[in-house]
Amino acid sequence: MPFIDLNSDVGESFGNWTMGDDAAVFRYVSSANVACGFHAGDPSTIARTCRDAAAAGVTIGAHVGYRDLAGFGRRFLDCSASELADDVLYQLGALQALARAAGSEIKYVKPHGALYNTIVHHEVHAQAVADAVHAFSPGLPLLLLPGSVALAKAEARGLRGVAEAFADRAYNADGTLVSRREEGAVLHDHAAITENMVRLATEGKIVARDGSILDVHAESICVHGDTPGAVAMAAAVRAGLEAAGVTVRSFA
Amino acid sequence: MPFIDLNSDVGESFGNWTMGDDAAVFRYVSSANVACGFHAGDPSTIARTCRDAAAAGVTIGAHVGYRDLAGFGRRFLDCSASELADDVLYQLGALQALARAAGSEIKYVKPHGALYNTIVHHEVHAQAVADAVHAFSPGLPLLLLPGSVALAKAEARGLRGVAEAFADRAYNADGTLVSRREEGAVLHDHAAITENMVRLATEGKIVARDGSILDVHAESICVHGDTPGAVAMAAAVRAGLEAAGVTVRSFA
Amino acid sequence: MPFIDLNSDVGESFGNWTMGDDAAVFRYVSSANVACGFHAGDPSTIARTCRDAAAAGVTIGAHVGYRDLAGFGRRFLDCSASELADDVLYQLGALQALARAAGSEIKYVKPHGALYNTIVHHEVHAQAVADAVHAFSPGLPLLLLPGSVALAKAEARGLRGVAEAFADRAYNADGTLVSRREEGAVLHDHAAITENMVRLATEGKIVARDGSILDVHAESICVHGDTPGAVAMAAAVRAGLEAAGVTVRSFA
Amino acid sequence: MPFIDLNSDVGESFGNWTMGDDAAVFRYVSSANVACGFHAGDPSTIARTCRDAAAAGVTIGAHVGYRDLAGFGRRFLDCSASELADDVLYQLGALQALARAAGSEIKYVKPHGALYNTIVHHEVHAQAVADAVHAFSPGLPLLLLPGSVALAKAEARGLRGVAEAFADRAYNADGTLVSRREEGAVLHDHAAITENMVRLATEGKIVARDGSILDVHAESICVHGDTPGAVAMAAAVRAGLEAAGVTVRSFA
Repeated sequence: MPFIDLNSDVGESFGNWTMGDDAAVFRYVSSANVACGFHAGDPSTIARTCRDAAAAGVTIGAHVGYRDLAGFGRRFLDCSASELADDVLYQLGALQALARAAGSEIKYVKPHGALYNTIVHHEVHAQAVADAVHAFSPGLPLLLLPGSVALAKAEARGLRGVAEAFADRAYNADGTLVSRREEGAVLHDHAAITENMVRLATEGKIVARDGSILDVHAESICVHGDTPGAVAMAAAVRAGLEAAGVTVRSFA
Repeated sequence: MPFIDLNSDVGESFGNWTMGDDAAVFRYVSSANVACGFHAGDPSTIARTCRDAAAAGVTIGAHVGYRDLAGFGRRFLDCSASELADDVLYQLGALQALARAAGSEIKYVKPHGALYNTIVHHEVHAQAVADAVHAFSPGLPLLLLPGSVALAKAEARGLRGVAEAFADRAYNADGTLVSRREEGAVLHDHAAITENMVRLATEGKIVARDGSILDVHAESICVHGDTPGAVAMAAAVRAGLEAAGVTVRSFA
Repeated sequence: MPFIDLNSDVGESFGNWTMGDDAAVFRYVSSANVACGFHAGDPSTIARTCRDAAAAGVTIGAHVGYRDLAGFGRRFLDCSASELADDVLYQLGALQALARAAGSEIKYVKPHGALYNTIVHHEVHAQAVADAVHAFSPGLPLLLLPGSVALAKAEARGLRGVAEAFADRAYNADGTLVSRREEGAVLHDHAAITENMVRLATEGKIVARDGSILDVHAESICVHGDTPGAVAMAAAVRAGLEAAGVTVRSFA
Repeated sequence: MPFIDLNSDVGESFGNWTMGDDAAVFRYVSSANVACGFHAGDPSTIARTCRDAAAAGVTIGAHVGYRDLAGFGRRFLDCSASELADDVLYQLGALQALARAAGSEIKYVKPHGALYNTIVHHEVHAQAVADAVHAFSPGLPLLLLPGSVALAKAEARGLRGVAEAFADRAYNADGTLVSRREEGAVLHDHAAITENMVRLATEGKIVARDGSILDVHAESICVHGDTPGAVAMAAAVRAGLEAAGVTVRSFA
């Protein structure tokens, strides 16, 4: 029986500001990347998110980011390795306390935004993230982009690296994502997306933009929940996977 | 053999700003109240402080506060019970991760500044702190002012409440502290302070401002380390206690 | 020809988080209370809001608040008089620079949230706000609750105090607002609200919850824009006022 | 009569944390780079600093930085051009309000830390700073590194660019600063430093590390005040300049 994980970002409200429809997301995903307070997520938002994830049977991951609320963690911050490692540890511990109070716990780590993108290539920050996760709990998998420096650093550190695919992103023939600056980078056709994700889950293959067939080893699919369209796409992917006999379940 | 604990605030630097002489403090105290990032203490400061505390054999306590960096946690913030409980849990978890990475862990909780003073009388905030500590770890003692609402709430919640005395503060005849607004509230004579603290540790008594003898049940003595004078006073108290045959050790 | 001002809060987005439908609000109000960064409003949000207000011909007011992003300025913060005055000056200057870059400028000040409510009765904070506004520009009116301590302090300081009414709030027979904790405190019937506001603008009277007729001297009416219902209510009030021959225009 | 400006960073305390000895600095410099709250400087610190600068007859400059309190503005933050320009405008306005309340006003702008270093070469951020200063006040000079992209952008924007020299830094033969990573980058010999700065003020020349004589067109000399040694060096430079008949005065 084939299976795969669906992950999405949640807990990204802050104080009086709401973001995303977490309740809807929890109906479709198996893994929730919960904001840890540095790019989004005040403690009460995190607490509520952890309770809702636990109630929905969704696995909790730590969505750690740069210390940049005003930029939502989407701006590279040139911190030192030790600053970054300590910032990551701080976030992991904070989320862990709130997850445990909700009867759950952190089962994996997925870097957020600029940190996620930076450690695709930035050796020092990639190492700092791997070091921090290892110091927190050597058994915690890191959810990352296939082929990234971070994935290599995680595995060299003895951590389990888990690769993910992106449901709504077009792939180049070399397996990289089509840049958002190019036309057609973001996909909108739910049927085509679903077909592609079923192929990934059942055959380990994705059709690239040019029609070529790529081998993609991904244990998770990233979907979004910050717009009604995104939630509908997540629902379509989930329904399509299940209709094809694929079990949606956490990789952790 | 009589014994007592000496506690002091540490880890209150932030980024490029330094506060206190933590290295000196670690030579004299048995318990370190480590800032958790909300009133002071960035993650790297906390990490370094935990490593230094562990190296010095000093017990780590969580010095949780209101979310108010600009006010150093010294200003009452009228947050809700659930906001406060979640803020406390967040801080406890964050510190725990950094303490464990340093080979140690949180052994008690002491609220900071305005939070400490508020929960002497504020039932809702006192309950929120007790609830958060209990949710984090029911075995964690709370270090508080004798007679405070917070101490009662902690014990009603099943937590161990630990009362502390203040080395450099004058006491009224009814056992309360002389208000800082009154002359003579803060003591400066190291010999007199030390004599009073030895009496506390050996007989459970303190001489009040009016000369009357008070029964004070305190398992810890609060000293400071933010000025050279404060460090010298802590050193004097420690030396006096040991000369009197009192063992200085953590209550936890 | 009778006239009155309609004011609403705007610019309360922050970074990636959106709040309110400012574009819609600008179609109905004559005065915009623009967040200044301490409770909401990052610099780019403020800049855009000022440009939009200028383009819509809406007067800009400074919506100053306590330094509390996580609480959206809705929590009392027990800062000192000088801290509050300096915080207000800082916010006024920051908004002024962005308003001027947009070809406009601050024409009045309206405290936000907990600060607004606190200075109804808190003498020290009311004085601090009046002092800060006076130091910034003695000609700047302060928009406040009728009968508040802040209004008295503003006028004693030589500032123009402007009283406002609340379109969607029920009034007690003594002219105070019905507490939000009581049933019926918030009004939802657009027709009744509009009728009441027309009466206010044309006769200086409001019908209280018990049916009694109150004399209310208000130069502005506060409406909201943070929900579709709120925007519709603002539109209804504006249309009703104009249909009754009332000119909607800034008091400044 | 030759003259030159001496500038130093001030107002970099934050809340309960103190940095630098501003009172001492005000005795020696003609220009004070006042922190604006994004890398350091809470409103009350800024207000006090502006009053002290005004009392000492020292010219106030705006020391604008990236939004990064935890990193003291010393870490590059990859914000967009419009975010940076709005952040700079916000800081300029905030400082202006507090400077005016102190009876003074901003007379120039000097970017801080990572922003200063970044706009030596980063075209987009350099342009954003120039645009923001121009939008605030086209008559405001920008104090920058000679030869920097920022200086070119400022002048292309119609602003006056003012070049500065660094009293305590060694120069390469090509006029650039010796990197801090190299031995001898930071100078400590007050007599040699003073001699070099007198030569700069009187002849427009500096002796480079290799002994070659450089033509340096600088209207200001940057000195520091964050350590007792730095203050002593500033005092020595000031005394040396005056003994050589150089008037120390603001360039603004």
